[in-house]
Amino acid sequence: MVKVALIGAGSLAWSSTLIRDLCLTPTLYGSTITLMDIAPQRLDVIYGFARRYASEVEAQLSFERTTDRREALRGADFVINTAMAGGHGYYERMRALSERHGYYRGINSVEWNMVSDYHTIWGYYQLRLMMEIARDMEELCPEGWLLLLANPVFEGTTLLSRETRVKVIGLCHGHLGYKEVVETLGLDVDGVEAEMLGFNHLIWLTRFRYGGEDAYPLLEEWIDREAEAYWRGWRERQRNPFDIQMSPAAVDMYHRYGLFPIGDTVRGGTWRYHWNLEEKRRWYGPTGGPDSEVGWSLYLKGQGRKGETIAEAMEEPSKPLTSLLPPRRSEESVVPIIDSIANDHGALYQVNVLNKGVISGLPEDVAVEAPLEIDGKGIHRRSLGSLPRRITRQVMELRRLRLEWALEAFLEGGREPLEEWLLIDPRTKSNRQVEAVIEDLLSMPGNEEMKRHFR
Amino acid sequence: MVKVALIGAGSLAWSSTLIRDLCLTPTLYGSTITLMDIAPQRLDVIYGFARRYASEVEAQLSFERTTDRREALRGADFVINTAMAGGHGYYERMRALSERHGYYRGINSVEWNMVSDYHTIWGYYQLRLMMEIARDMEELCPEGWLLLLANPVFEGTTLLSRETRVKVIGLCHGHLGYKEVVETLGLDVDGVEAEMLGFNHLIWLTRFRYGGEDAYPLLEEWIDREAEAYWRGWRERQRNPFDIQMSPAAVDMYHRYGLFPIGDTVRGGTWRYHWNLEEKRRWYGPTGGPDSEVGWSLYLKGQGRKGETIAEAMEEPSKPLTSLLPPRRSEESVVPIIDSIANDHGALYQVNVLNKGVISGLPEDVAVEAPLEIDGKGIHRRSLGSLPRRITRQVMELRRLRLEWALEAFLEGGREPLEEWLLIDPRTKSNRQVEAVIEDLLSMPGNEEMKRHFR
Repeated sequence: MVKVALIGAGSLAWSSTLIRDLCLTPTLYGSTITLMDIAPQRLDVIYGFARRYASEVEAQLSFERTTDRREALRGADFVINTAMAGGHGYYERMRALSERHGYYRGINSVEWNMVSDYHTIWGYYQLRLMMEIARDMEELCPEGWLLLLANPVFEGTTLLSRETRVKVIGLCHGHLGYKEVVETLGLDVDGVEAEMLGFNHLIWLTRFRYGGEDAYPLLEEWIDREAEAYWRGWRERQRNPFDIQMSPAAVDMYHRYGLFPIGDTVRGGTWRYHWNLEEKRRWYGPTGGPDSEVGWSLYLKGQGRKGETIAEAMEEPSKPLTSLLPPRRSEESVVPIIDSIANDHGALYQVNVLNKGVISGLPEDVAVEAPLEIDGKGIHRRSLGSLPRRITRQVMELRRLRLEWALEAFLEGGREPLEEWLLIDPRTKSNRQVEAVIEDLLSMPGNEEMKRHFR
Repeated sequence: MVKVALIGAGSLAWSSTLIRDLCLTPTLYGSTITLMDIAPQRLDVIYGFARRYASEVEAQLSFERTTDRREALRGADFVINTAMAGGHGYYERMRALSERHGYYRGINSVEWNMVSDYHTIWGYYQLRLMMEIARDMEELCPEGWLLLLANPVFEGTTLLSRETRVKVIGLCHGHLGYKEVVETLGLDVDGVEAEMLGFNHLIWLTRFRYGGEDAYPLLEEWIDREAEAYWRGWRERQRNPFDIQMSPAAVDMYHRYGLFPIGDTVRGGTWRYHWNLEEKRRWYGPTGGPDSEVGWSLYLKGQGRKGETIAEAMEEPSKPLTSLLPPRRSEESVVPIIDSIANDHGALYQVNVLNKGVISGLPEDVAVEAPLEIDGKGIHRRSLGSLPRRITRQVMELRRLRLEWALEAFLEGGREPLEEWLLIDPRTKSNRQVEAVIEDLLSMPGNEEMKRHFR
C-alpha cells in the first residue's frame, strides 16, 4: 500500500511501460499511482490508458491524475521523475543554433557525453526542474524515494544527492547492452555473469564470466575472427541507429582503454568518433549511430510514433490494450525496486548513487553506476574495487570534470562557466566564436530566465 | 660541512647565481660543491668561474668537477637538478614540427601550461633523466635531498615523490612576481604579507595584506582607476616579454577566477589568451609575452647572452668577477634551504612537495606549491586551507588532469596516451592530424628511443 507519483507521465511511450509493470506486480496491489504532467491532454490519455490496462489485467491499483506537481508529491512513498523540461523541440532549436556557430551537434555534446538528450551545460531548465521536485519532496514527502529516470542521470543524481536531503536513485537501462554482447558471441545469457561499473552512460564490463570462467577471451576471439564479417553485414543492414553495441567504436574503446564499454557508453568517446557524419559512420555504421543528425532524427520520429500508437489504441475501446502491450513485465528495474523497498525483497539492481567508496579511485561525492542490493532498509553500498587506471585517468576524470563544470554553471551562474566550457572544446577556434554562440543561445526565445542566470 | 652536487652545472647563467649564493653563505663554508655536466667544456668554464669567484670573496668552499653523474651523486647531502635533457634546440625542433601540423607553439602547450620550456607530454627524455638521477640517489646518497629546479617542476616533483624514495623539493622563483604587484601598486614591500598557493606555475594570491589590512581593495582600485593608463604606457615600452605580471591577461584571470595570478601563472590560461600571436599581443603586450614566437626567441637569445658574458669574463683573469656579479645574494631560495637543513635554521620557503593535506580540495598525491617551514628535520607541512571552488574546479583540476596524462604517457608508453592528449586539444580537427603529428615527432632524429617507448 504505497503512493507512487509519476512526474512527467505524459511521455506515453515510457509511462505505458511503467504502468504495465505496476499492473503486473501483485505485491504492490492496493497502491495509489498519481500521474502528473503539465500537459492535461496527454495526461488524460495516459490516465485512460492506465485505468483500462489495469482493468484488463485486473490489477488492484488506484490511479489519480493531476497537473499540480505538489499535489502529486504530497505523502508519496516513491516519486518517479521522467520529465524533460522544455521537451525535445526546445533542445533541437539550441542544437541548430549551435551548429550555425560551428558546434556540430550542439555545445552540450562534449567528450564522453555525445548523447543528444543528455542535457548538461545547456540543461538549465532541466536541472532546475529536478531541483524543484526534490525541494518539494523535502517538504511534502521527506521520507519518499526519488527514482530519477530523467537525464542527465549522472549530473542529476550527483546534484540532488549533494544539495538536497532527498533519497535519490538514478536509473538507466543502458547496462542491459551487455545482453547484446552475449547474444552476438552466441552465449546463453543465463550462464553469464556480468558486472558493469562506472558513471551513468560510462560503464565498463569489469566482470564477464561464462560457465564460471573468464569470458573476455571469447570476446577477443570474436574480435579477431568474426568482427570484420559481422561489420560487413551490419553495415548493410543497420536500420536501428542504436544497434552499435558491437560497433567498431566499441571495439576501439576496448582496445584503447582496456575494458569493453556497455550500452550508452559506446555513444560517448572523444571527438575521435564524432568529428562529423562521415567519421560517425565509420565507427557507428551507416546511420552514424543514435547521435548523428541521421540517427537522432530517426530516434525522434520513433518516439513520436510510439506515443501515437498508444493514443490511437485509446480511440478504439473495443480492442484490448493487452493486444498492443502484452501482459509481460519489461526489463526496467523501476517497479522491481519499488517492490524491493516496499516489501523488503532484497535484490541486486544497477543503480546510480553517490559513490562513497563503492568504486575506489573515483571521488566519494559523485554518482557512480554499479550493482547494489536494495531492500526495505534501502541501498546497501559495498566496495566493488576500482576501474583500470587508464579508464579512471583518461575517461572518468575527464567526464567528471565536465560534470563539475556543468553543476557549477547551474549553481553559480554567470557567463564565465559557459565560456570556460567552450574554451576547452576542439570545435572552438576563437573567443569571438565563444561569445557569439553564448549570446545567441541565451537570446533564443524561451531562454529569458536562463539568460538572467548566465548574465 | 656538506656535499652539494649540482647536476646540469653547465648552464652558466643559472649556475653562476647559485655559486655566488653558496660563496656568500659562510655557514656552509667547509662544504664541497661538485659540479657535474655532460658537456666538458662548459663544465670547465663554470668550474673556473666557481674557483675564481670563491677566491675573490674568500669563500671557504671546495669545488669539484665531473662528467660522471654517479660520481657527483655519491654521498651527496644535497643534489640540485637543473638539467634540461636535450637542450632548448631539441624542443624547438619539436615545436617547429608541431606547427607544421597546425599545433601553434607545439603539442606540449596546452591549457594552463603554455610555458615554452615546461616539457610534459613531449618531455620523455627530461622526465627519464629526472628519474635516473633519483634512482641513482636511492643507491648512492639515499639520505640526500633532491632540489628540483629543472622543469617541469610540477610533473617532476609529483613523479619523483610518487615513484622513488628520494626526498624531493621542487623550487621555482615565479612566486616572487608578487613583488611586481606590490611595486606597481606603489606599496612598500616590507609592509606586505603575501601568500601564494597552488601548483607550480599555477599559484594564486590567497593572502594579500598591507599594514595588517586586506590589500585586495588596493588592487581593485588600481584596476579600476589606473590599469588602462598603465597598459597604454606598457604597450609602448614593453621590451622584456616577461613583463606581464600586471598585464590584461592577469587582470582577466583575476576577474574570471577570483584571485590574482602570480608569476608564471599569468603565462598560462586557456587558449583564450593564446590562439595566435595577435591574441597573445592583446593580452600580453607587443611581444606577445614570453611564450609567443616573438617573446620566446628574445628569451632564448637572452639566455645565450648571459652564458656568453660569463664565458667572456673568464677570458679576462685581470678583471674581478665581482665587478660582473657583485657579492650580493640573489633572491633564489636554493642555498638558504640548504643552509636551513644543514644548520637547522628554520625558515619559511615557497616549495613544491606532495600535497598530503596542505591545500584541501586538491588531491593528496600531487605536488602543491606553498610556503612551508624547513629546518634540520626537513619540511613541516601544515594545513593552509583551500583555493576558491572556481579555481579548484576550472583551473587546478584541468591542469591536474594534464599532469596525470603526461605521467601516464611517460610511465606506461604506447601510442594511445599521446592520441588522447591531442584529442581534447582545440587545435585538433581530425584523427589524421593527430596521427600525422605523432608520427612525425617520433620519427624526428634524436627521438629513436622515445619512438620505441610510444610504439
